[in-house]
Amino acid sequence: MNKEKAISIVKPQLTEERFEHTLRVTQTALELAETYNVNKEKVELAGILHDYAKYRPKEELKRSILTSNLPKDLLDYHHELWHGPAGALLLEQEHGINDSDVQQAIRYHTTGKANMSMLEMIIFIADYSEPGRDFPGVQEVRDIVHHDLYRASWLATRNTINFLMQKNATIYPDTFHAYNDLTRQLNGGND
Amino acid sequence: MNKEKAISIVKPQLTEERFEHTLRVTQTALELAETYNVNKEKVELAGILHDYAKYRPKEELKRSILTSNLPKDLLDYHHELWHGPAGALLLEQEHGINDSDVQQAIRYHTTGKANMSMLEMIIFIADYSEPGRDFPGVQEVRDIVHHDLYRASWLATRNTINFLMQKNATIYPDTFHAYNDLTRQLNGGND
Repeated sequence: MNKEKAISIVKPQLTEERFEHTLRVTQTALELAETYNVNKEKVELAGILHDYAKYRPKEELKRSILTSNLPKDLLDYHHELWHGPAGALLLEQEHGINDSDVQQAIRYHTTGKANMSMLEMIIFIADYSEPGRDFPGVQEVRDIVHHDLYRASWLATRNTINFLMQKNATIYPDTFHAYNDLTRQLNGGND
Repeated sequence: MNKEKAISIVKPQLTEERFEHTLRVTQTALELAETYNVNKEKVELAGILHDYAKYRPKEELKRSILTSNLPKDLLDYHHELWHGPAGALLLEQEHGINDSDVQQAIRYHTTGKANMSMLEMIIFIADYSEPGRDFPGVQEVRDIVHHDLYRASWLATRNTINFLMQKNATIYPDTFHAYNDLTRQLNGGND
Protein backbone atom coordinates (compact mmCIF):
# COMPACT_ATOMS: atom_id res chain seq x y z
CA MET A 1 0.00 0.00 0.00
CA ASN A 2 1.43 3.37 -0.94
CA LYS A 3 1.62 6.45 1.25
CA GLU A 4 -1.30 8.28 -0.38
CA LYS A 5 -3.60 5.30 0.00
CA ALA A 6 -2.62 4.84 3.66
CA ILE A 7 -3.26 8.52 4.35
CA SER A 8 -6.63 8.35 2.65
CA ILE A 9 -7.55 5.46 4.94
CA VAL A 10 -6.46 7.03 8.20
CA LYS A 11 -7.23 10.72 7.76
CA PRO A 12 -11.03 10.42 8.04
CA GLN A 13 -10.55 8.50 11.30
CA LEU A 14 -8.61 11.23 13.12
CA THR A 15 -8.97 14.76 14.39
CA GLU A 16 -6.86 17.33 12.58
CA GLU A 17 -4.55 17.57 15.58
CA ARG A 18 -4.13 13.81 15.75
CA PHE A 19 -3.49 13.65 12.01
CA GLU A 20 -0.69 16.18 12.41
CA HIS A 21 0.75 14.06 15.20
CA THR A 22 0.56 11.09 12.82
CA LEU A 23 2.57 12.93 10.18
CA ARG A 24 5.20 13.91 12.75
CA VAL A 25 5.46 10.32 13.99
CA THR A 26 5.87 9.12 10.42
CA GLN A 27 8.56 11.69 9.67
CA THR A 28 10.41 10.91 12.93
CA ALA A 29 10.16 7.19 12.22
CA LEU A 30 11.45 7.59 8.66
CA GLU A 31 14.50 9.48 9.92
CA LEU A 32 15.17 6.60 12.32
CA ALA A 33 14.66 4.08 9.52
CA GLU A 34 17.37 5.90 7.59
CA THR A 35 19.76 5.89 10.56
CA TYR A 36 19.18 2.24 11.42
CA ASN A 37 18.66 0.90 7.91
CA VAL A 38 15.16 -0.43 8.44
CA ASN A 39 12.61 -1.03 5.66
CA LYS A 40 11.18 2.42 4.93
CA GLU A 41 7.98 1.25 3.29
CA LYS A 42 7.01 -0.67 6.40
CA VAL A 43 8.06 2.11 8.73
CA GLU A 44 6.05 4.65 6.74
CA LEU A 45 2.95 2.46 6.64
CA ALA A 46 3.09 1.69 10.36
CA GLY A 47 3.70 5.35 11.20
CA ILE A 48 0.77 6.58 9.12
CA LEU A 49 -1.61 3.92 10.40
CA HIS A 50 -0.59 3.54 14.05
CA ASP A 51 -3.48 5.59 15.50
CA TYR A 52 -6.13 4.28 13.11
CA ALA A 53 -8.43 3.15 15.94
CA LYS A 54 -7.69 6.03 18.33
CA TYR A 55 -11.18 7.53 18.13
CA ARG A 56 -13.24 4.39 17.83
CA PRO A 57 -15.81 4.11 20.61
CA LYS A 58 -14.59 2.20 23.66
CA GLU A 59 -17.35 -0.35 23.17
CA GLU A 60 -16.15 -1.12 19.65
CA LEU A 61 -12.54 -1.52 20.80
CA LYS A 62 -13.73 -3.78 23.60
CA ARG A 63 -15.72 -5.90 21.17
CA SER A 64 -12.66 -6.23 18.91
CA ILE A 65 -10.65 -7.53 21.85
CA LEU A 66 -13.37 -9.89 23.05
CA THR A 67 -14.05 -11.40 19.64
CA SER A 68 -10.42 -11.89 18.55
CA ASN A 69 -7.38 -13.66 19.87
CA LEU A 70 -6.09 -10.46 21.50
CA PRO A 71 -5.27 -10.90 25.20
CA LYS A 72 -8.36 -10.34 27.31
CA ASP A 73 -6.38 -8.83 30.18
CA LEU A 74 -6.18 -5.63 28.11
CA LEU A 75 -9.71 -4.98 29.32
CA ASP A 76 -8.46 -4.86 32.93
CA TYR A 77 -6.24 -1.88 32.00
CA HIS A 78 -6.86 1.66 30.85
CA HIS A 79 -8.78 1.90 27.57
CA GLU A 80 -6.02 4.12 26.16
CA LEU A 81 -4.14 0.84 25.66
CA TRP A 82 -6.81 -0.71 23.45
CA HIS A 83 -6.46 1.30 20.24
CA GLY A 84 -3.07 -0.19 19.28
CA PRO A 85 -4.00 -3.88 19.36
CA ALA A 86 -7.55 -3.24 18.11
CA GLY A 87 -6.24 -0.91 15.41
CA ALA A 88 -3.96 -3.57 13.96
CA LEU A 89 -6.91 -5.94 13.86
CA LEU A 90 -9.38 -3.46 12.35
CA LEU A 91 -6.90 -2.43 9.65
CA GLU A 92 -6.77 -6.03 8.52
CA GLN A 93 -10.53 -6.54 8.68
CA GLU A 94 -11.44 -3.26 7.03
CA HIS A 95 -8.54 -2.71 4.61
CA GLY A 96 -6.78 -6.04 4.25
CA ILE A 97 -3.54 -4.81 5.81
CA ASN A 98 -1.90 -8.07 6.77
CA ASP A 99 1.83 -7.39 6.84
CA SER A 100 2.62 -8.90 10.22
CA ASP A 101 5.63 -6.64 10.83
CA VAL A 102 3.48 -3.57 10.32
CA GLN A 103 0.66 -5.08 12.38
CA GLN A 104 2.97 -5.79 15.30
CA ALA A 105 4.43 -2.28 15.24
CA ILE A 106 0.92 -0.80 15.38
CA ARG A 107 -0.20 -3.26 18.03
CA TYR A 108 2.59 -2.48 20.47
CA HIS A 109 3.17 1.20 19.79
CA THR A 110 1.76 2.33 23.16
CA THR A 111 2.91 -0.38 25.56
CA GLY A 112 6.10 -1.66 23.98
CA LYS A 113 6.94 -5.32 24.63
CA ALA A 114 9.90 -7.61 25.27
CA ASN A 115 12.06 -8.40 22.25
CA MET A 116 10.87 -5.56 20.05
CA SER A 117 11.95 -5.68 16.41
CA MET A 118 13.72 -2.61 15.03
CA LEU A 119 10.50 -1.63 13.29
CA GLU A 120 8.50 -1.98 16.51
CA MET A 121 11.04 0.02 18.46
CA ILE A 122 11.13 2.79 15.85
CA ILE A 123 7.35 3.25 15.88
CA PHE A 124 7.25 3.04 19.69
CA ILE A 125 9.95 5.67 20.13
CA ALA A 126 8.75 7.91 17.29
CA ASP A 127 5.30 8.03 18.89
CA TYR A 128 6.92 8.86 22.22
CA SER A 129 9.36 11.49 21.03
CA GLU A 130 7.94 13.19 17.92
CA PRO A 131 8.59 16.96 18.03
CA GLY A 132 5.08 17.80 19.22
CA ARG A 133 5.56 15.87 22.48
CA ASP A 134 6.42 17.89 25.56
CA PHE A 135 6.93 16.12 28.87
CA PRO A 136 9.80 15.56 31.31
CA GLY A 137 12.57 13.45 29.84
CA VAL A 138 11.51 13.58 26.18
CA GLN A 139 14.41 15.81 25.10
CA GLU A 140 16.92 13.37 26.58
CA VAL A 141 15.34 10.65 24.45
CA ARG A 142 15.51 12.80 21.30
CA ASP A 143 19.14 13.63 22.00
CA ILE A 144 20.25 9.99 21.92
CA VAL A 145 17.73 8.20 19.74
CA HIS A 146 19.88 8.43 16.60
CA HIS A 147 22.90 6.90 18.24
CA ASP A 148 21.40 4.52 20.84
CA LEU A 149 17.94 3.27 20.00
CA TYR A 150 17.96 0.72 22.84
CA ARG A 151 18.84 3.25 25.49
CA ALA A 152 16.29 5.72 24.11
CA SER A 153 13.61 3.01 24.28
CA TRP A 154 14.72 2.05 27.78
CA LEU A 155 14.44 5.67 28.93
CA ALA A 156 10.99 5.89 27.36
CA THR A 157 9.73 2.79 29.18
CA ARG A 158 11.27 3.95 32.45
CA ASN A 159 9.74 7.41 32.11
CA THR A 160 6.38 5.89 31.25
CA ILE A 161 6.41 3.59 34.28
CA ASN A 162 7.41 6.52 36.49
CA PHE A 163 4.70 8.71 35.02
CA LEU A 164 2.03 6.06 35.57
CA MET A 165 3.20 5.37 39.13
CA GLN A 166 3.04 9.11 39.89
CA LYS A 167 -0.57 9.03 38.72
CA ASN A 168 -1.35 5.95 40.86
CA ALA A 169 -2.20 4.12 37.64
CA THR A 170 -1.81 0.47 36.76
CA ILE A 171 0.84 -0.53 34.22
CA TYR A 172 0.25 -3.07 31.47
CA PRO A 173 2.59 -6.07 31.84
CA ASP A 174 4.07 -5.65 28.33
CA THR A 175 5.51 -2.31 29.43
CA PHE A 176 7.24 -4.01 32.37
CA HIS A 177 8.48 -6.74 30.08
CA ALA A 178 9.83 -4.07 27.70
CA TYR A 179 11.61 -2.38 30.62
CA ASN A 180 13.18 -5.63 31.86
CA ASP A 181 14.18 -6.75 28.38
CA LEU A 182 15.77 -3.40 27.46
CA THR A 183 17.52 -3.29 30.85
CA ARG A 184 19.07 -6.67 30.06
CA GLN A 185 20.08 -5.56 26.58
CA LEU A 186 21.78 -2.47 27.99
CA ASN A 187 23.50 -4.46 30.74
CA GLY A 188 24.82 -6.95 28.24
CA GLY A 189 22.50 -9.77 29.23
CA ASN A 190 23.08 -9.53 33.00
CA ASP A 191 20.53 -8.29 35.49
CA MET B 1 6.75 -24.44 66.63
CA ASN B 2 7.40 -22.04 69.48
CA LYS B 3 9.46 -18.88 69.37
CA GLU B 4 12.52 -20.32 71.12
CA LYS B 5 12.69 -23.29 68.79
CA ALA B 6 12.36 -21.05 65.71
CA ILE B 7 15.12 -18.78 66.99
CA SER B 8 17.36 -21.76 67.65
CA ILE B 9 16.88 -22.84 64.03
CA VAL B 10 17.53 -19.50 62.41
CA LYS B 11 20.19 -17.90 64.59
CA PRO B 12 23.08 -20.14 63.47
CA GLN B 13 22.23 -19.30 59.84
CA LEU B 14 22.60 -15.51 60.19
CA THR B 15 25.18 -12.87 60.95
CA GLU B 16 24.64 -11.04 64.23
CA GLU B 17 23.53 -7.95 62.34
CA ARG B 18 21.05 -9.92 60.26
CA PHE B 19 19.74 -11.66 63.38
CA GLU B 20 19.06 -8.27 64.95
CA HIS B 21 17.20 -7.24 61.77
CA THR B 22 15.20 -10.46 62.11
CA LEU B 23 14.15 -9.58 65.67
CA ARG B 24 13.13 -6.07 64.59
CA VAL B 25 11.10 -7.47 61.68
CA THR B 26 9.38 -9.89 64.05
CA GLN B 27 8.58 -7.15 66.57
CA THR B 28 7.29 -4.81 63.83
CA ALA B 29 5.21 -7.63 62.36
CA LEU B 30 3.72 -8.54 65.77
CA GLU B 31 2.63 -4.94 66.31
CA LEU B 32 0.91 -5.04 62.93
CA ALA B 33 -0.69 -8.40 63.78
CA GLU B 34 -2.16 -6.74 66.88
CA THR B 35 -3.48 -3.78 64.88
CA TYR B 36 -4.97 -5.90 62.11
CA ASN B 37 -6.01 -8.91 64.20
CA VAL B 38 -3.88 -11.46 62.36
CA ASN B 39 -2.75 -14.80 63.85
CA LYS B 40 0.24 -13.88 66.03
CA GLU B 41 1.79 -17.33 66.14
CA LYS B 42 2.04 -17.43 62.35
CA VAL B 43 3.26 -13.83 62.12
CA GLU B 44 5.95 -14.50 64.74
CA LEU B 45 7.11 -17.70 63.06
CA ALA B 46 7.28 -16.10 59.60
CA GLY B 47 9.07 -13.04 61.00
CA ILE B 48 11.71 -15.10 62.79
CA LEU B 49 12.31 -17.42 59.86
CA HIS B 50 11.97 -15.10 56.85
CA ASP B 51 15.71 -14.74 56.19
CA TYR B 52 16.60 -18.36 56.96
CA ALA B 53 18.33 -18.89 53.58
CA LYS B 54 19.85 -15.41 53.30
CA TYR B 55 23.46 -16.61 53.59
CA ARG B 56 23.21 -19.90 51.75
CA PRO B 57 25.62 -20.06 48.83
CA LYS B 58 24.14 -18.91 45.54
CA GLU B 59 24.75 -22.34 44.05
CA GLU B 60 22.68 -24.01 46.76
CA LEU B 61 19.80 -21.56 46.29
CA LYS B 62 19.98 -22.14 42.56
CA ARG B 63 19.84 -25.90 43.04
CA SER B 64 16.80 -25.52 45.31
CA ILE B 65 15.02 -23.59 42.58
CA LEU B 66 16.05 -25.98 39.81
CA THR B 67 15.05 -29.14 41.69
CA SER B 68 11.69 -27.91 43.02
CA ASN B 69 8.50 -26.52 41.57
CA LEU B 70 9.65 -22.96 42.18
CA PRO B 71 9.44 -20.77 39.05
CA LYS B 72 12.62 -21.08 37.03
CA ASP B 73 12.47 -17.48 35.86
CA LEU B 74 13.78 -16.49 39.31
CA LEU B 75 17.18 -17.48 37.97
CA ASP B 76 16.95 -14.76 35.32
CA TYR B 77 16.74 -12.12 38.07
CA HIS B 78 19.06 -10.90 40.81
CA HIS B 79 20.09 -13.63 43.28
CA GLU B 80 18.93 -11.43 46.15
CA LEU B 81 15.44 -12.63 45.18
CA TRP B 82 16.23 -16.31 45.64
CA HIS B 83 16.50 -16.59 49.43
CA GLY B 84 12.78 -16.06 50.08
CA PRO B 85 11.41 -18.83 47.86
CA ALA B 86 14.35 -21.14 48.53
CA GLY B 87 14.14 -20.41 52.27
CA ALA B 88 10.51 -21.49 52.49
CA LEU B 89 11.46 -24.72 50.73
CA LEU B 90 14.58 -25.43 52.82
CA LEU B 91 12.68 -24.81 56.07
CA GLU B 92 10.28 -27.55 55.10
CA GLN B 93 13.00 -29.95 53.97
CA GLU B 94 15.31 -29.35 56.93
CA HIS B 95 12.86 -28.62 59.75
CA GLY B 96 9.46 -29.84 58.62
CA ILE B 97 7.91 -26.37 58.62
CA ASN B 98 4.90 -26.93 56.39
CA ASP B 99 2.34 -24.33 57.40
CA SER B 100 1.50 -23.00 53.97
CA ASP B 101 0.53 -19.53 55.26
CA VAL B 102 3.92 -19.15 56.90
CA GLN B 103 5.68 -20.61 53.85
CA GLN B 104 3.99 -18.15 51.52
CA ALA B 105 4.86 -15.17 53.73
CA ILE B 106 8.52 -16.21 53.73
CA ARG B 107 8.48 -16.95 50.02
CA TYR B 108 7.18 -13.55 48.96
CA HIS B 109 8.72 -11.31 51.60
CA THR B 110 11.14 -9.63 49.15
CA THR B 111 9.13 -9.36 45.96
CA GLY B 112 5.55 -9.15 47.17
CA LYS B 113 2.89 -10.56 44.84
CA ALA B 114 -0.65 -9.92 43.65
CA ASN B 115 -3.39 -10.77 46.14
CA MET B 116 -1.24 -10.89 49.24
CA SER B 117 -2.85 -12.28 52.38
CA MET B 118 -2.75 -10.10 55.50
CA LEU B 119 0.04 -12.30 56.84
CA GLU B 120 2.05 -11.94 53.61
CA MET B 121 1.56 -8.20 53.56
CA ILE B 122 2.58 -7.84 57.21
CA ILE B 123 5.87 -9.73 56.71
CA PHE B 124 6.55 -7.88 53.44
CA ILE B 125 6.01 -4.45 55.00
CA ALA B 126 7.71 -5.28 58.32
CA ASP B 127 10.82 -6.35 56.40
CA TYR B 128 10.65 -3.13 54.40
CA SER B 129 10.01 -0.71 57.26
CA GLU B 130 11.52 -2.15 60.47
CA PRO B 131 13.21 0.60 62.52
CA GLY B 132 16.71 -0.29 61.31
CA ARG B 133 15.83 0.55 57.69
CA ASP B 134 16.90 3.94 56.38
CA PHE B 135 16.12 4.93 52.81
CA PRO B 136 13.97 7.54 51.07
CA GLY B 137 10.26 7.05 51.68
CA VAL B 138 10.50 4.56 54.56
CA GLN B 139 9.27 7.03 57.19
CA GLU B 140 6.15 7.78 55.16
CA VAL B 141 5.42 4.04 55.14
CA ARG B 142 5.93 3.79 58.92
CA ASP B 143 3.66 6.77 59.48
CA ILE B 144 0.67 5.13 57.82
CA VAL B 145 1.21 1.40 58.17
CA HIS B 146 -0.96 1.10 61.29
CA HIS B 147 -3.94 2.78 59.69
CA ASP B 148 -3.61 1.83 56.02
CA LEU B 149 -1.74 -1.41 55.35
CA TYR B 150 -2.69 -1.43 51.66
CA ARG B 151 -1.43 2.06 51.01
CA ALA B 152 1.76 1.36 52.97
CA SER B 153 2.34 -1.77 50.87
CA TRP B 154 1.58 0.16 47.68
CA LEU B 155 4.12 2.85 48.62
CA ALA B 156 6.68 0.14 49.37
CA THR B 157 6.24 -1.53 45.97
CA ARG B 158 6.31 1.84 44.18
CA ASN B 159 9.46 2.90 46.03
CA THR B 160 11.07 -0.45 45.29
CA ILE B 161 10.30 -0.22 41.56
CA ASN B 162 11.62 3.35 41.49
CA PHE B 163 14.76 2.34 43.36
CA LEU B 164 15.46 -0.54 40.98
CA MET B 165 14.81 1.62 37.91
CA GLN B 166 17.24 4.23 39.24
CA LYS B 167 19.84 1.46 39.49
CA ASN B 168 19.09 0.27 35.92
CA ALA B 169 18.08 -3.08 37.43
CA THR B 170 15.49 -5.59 36.28
CA ILE B 171 12.33 -6.01 38.34
CA TYR B 172 10.81 -9.39 39.13
CA PRO B 173 7.28 -9.67 37.68
CA ASP B 174 5.69 -10.45 41.07
CA THR B 175 6.68 -6.97 42.23
CA PHE B 176 4.90 -5.43 39.23
CA HIS B 177 1.89 -7.63 39.89
CA ALA B 178 1.92 -6.48 43.54
CA TYR B 179 2.03 -2.85 42.38
CA ASN B 180 -0.85 -3.28 39.91
CA ASP B 181 -2.95 -5.25 42.39
CA LEU B 182 -2.45 -2.76 45.23
CA THR B 183 -3.14 0.13 42.83
CA ARG B 184 -6.47 -1.47 41.98
CA GLN B 185 -7.30 -2.08 45.65
CA LEU B 186 -6.60 1.58 46.46
CA ASN B 187 -8.58 2.81 43.46
CA GLY B 188 -11.56 0.70 44.44
CA GLY B 189 -11.16 -1.85 41.68
CA ASN B 190 -10.75 0.63 38.82
CA ASP B 191 -7.56 1.28 36.93
